[in-house]
Amino acid sequence: MTALTLTPLPGIPLIQPGDDLAQLILEALKRADIELLNGDILVLAQKIVSKAEGRLVNLAEIQPSPRARELAQRTQKDPRLVEMILRESREVLRTRPGTIIVEHRLGFVCASAGVDHSNVQGLDETHDWALLLPENPDASAQAIRARLEEASGARIGVLIIDSHGRAWRLGTMGVAIGLAGLPGLLDLRGCPDLFDFRLQITQVGVADELAAAASLVMGQAAEGTPVVHVRGFPYPLREASLRELLRPKEQDLFR
Amino acid sequence: MTALTLTPLPGIPLIQPGDDLAQLILEALKRADIELLNGDILVLAQKIVSKAEGRLVNLAEIQPSPRARELAQRTQKDPRLVEMILRESREVLRTRPGTIIVEHRLGFVCASAGVDHSNVQGLDETHDWALLLPENPDASAQAIRARLEEASGARIGVLIIDSHGRAWRLGTMGVAIGLAGLPGLLDLRGCPDLFDFRLQITQVGVADELAAAASLVMGQAAEGTPVVHVRGFPYPLREASLRELLRPKEQDLFR
Repeated sequence: MTALTLTPLPGIPLIQPGDDLAQLILEALKRADIELLNGDILVLAQKIVSKAEGRLVNLAEIQPSPRARELAQRTQKDPRLVEMILRESREVLRTRPGTIIVEHRLGFVCASAGVDHSNVQGLDETHDWALLLPENPDASAQAIRARLEEASGARIGVLIIDSHGRAWRLGTMGVAIGLAGLPGLLDLRGCPDLFDFRLQITQVGVADELAAAASLVMGQAAEGTPVVHVRGFPYPLREASLRELLRPKEQDLFR
Repeated sequence: MTALTLTPLPGIPLIQPGDDLAQLILEALKRADIELLNGDILVLAQKIVSKAEGRLVNLAEIQPSPRARELAQRTQKDPRLVEMILRESREVLRTRPGTIIVEHRLGFVCASAGVDHSNVQGLDETHDWALLLPENPDASAQAIRARLEEASGARIGVLIIDSHGRAWRLGTMGVAIGLAGLPGLLDLRGCPDLFDFRLQITQVGVADELAAAASLVMGQAAEGTPVVHVRGFPYPLREASLRELLRPKEQDLFR
């Protein structure tokens, strides 16, 4: 077994709408003296993908609905921000002062529908920006993967991650919100264990495990590095989508 | 920023009750030609710690209580196994055929109270073994850390991990169940973000992120390597315990 190595790429600039992320990643890889090889994976923070795709909303232009106003009052949040959270959600699951937990339109459960009101200022001081998740993170990952594969000749994976809280544990963790070219789940059903019994743990969330690993080296604040190069992912790359990581509602015991 | 490197250590033998894990890890490090340095972390699969500590129960000797029999019937599980799950739990949260979700006596929410009925056969064929989690995983981690620090002269961390399912996503993930010498949570409250706003994501579950990363390279089945050496953990080591990762019940929206 070989080592798994996660290298944050230095020198990715502050991303602006329309920026060519694939090109910026290729330049960062070159500066870091990393040549892409078959089986490598690049992990991208959602934030830079969303910014490059222009998923910015000027809250000054948002008219909150009565429902958003009511929810904003209950949760002590900005009604315009709540309006965007509702637009990005299929269902509100829980609310508390400061907290709105939803099923995002992409199918996962998260706080505030991934709408970020920090870290997106400074782009234009006359606006009050919020940043939404990419429209279709699987497609975003796929497009960047195609560009990187074309430029490198290597068969790689691309993973887009965000930070989510957990139901029963404190602290956020990196999780997959879009993937291309790497498995979401590793299916061990039917594999023998050490003594030839059938394994009871049958599916491993390997894309989420990798998301967590990459999140660890991205950092969260000013010194953040939003792109991580991964070498030594111990499972074969394959086509996949986020969907395989989402628990079907009928199997959900905690909604 | 430097790379994070996770190296599974080959050659850890099948662990038996009473085995000296610290000694086996030191020998494995030597074989892998790894010298422990300040800031390194060793991640151990729960299974080997539990086995070394003799946390085996011969189900043939277990008398299930009426409650265990009733729950076993509802969940289609072995009543003796259910008895051990109940003994290891504070509270049963959800049940379904094949599934019992509990609050473990150690405070976290997990399936089957971490009691494992696979991968522990073969030790003695006249018995039907189940394996419980370590009595006190923080203390187990601390004891191994003390031995490794004494032998190496380096200041290191030790993390014991298990695999847990998630409420809303498929696939298990590595999670911390015991730690010594590394932070469970990274507290970013009050840290400035890129534009000097206060960060909204304020606590990161770094021990769980590292657990997930290590789980990725441990493998799950016959080829598993239950000890992973970590270099490049990007945060200062400090004293900590599992408790800081557990969400207090009064903050639990999904119980």
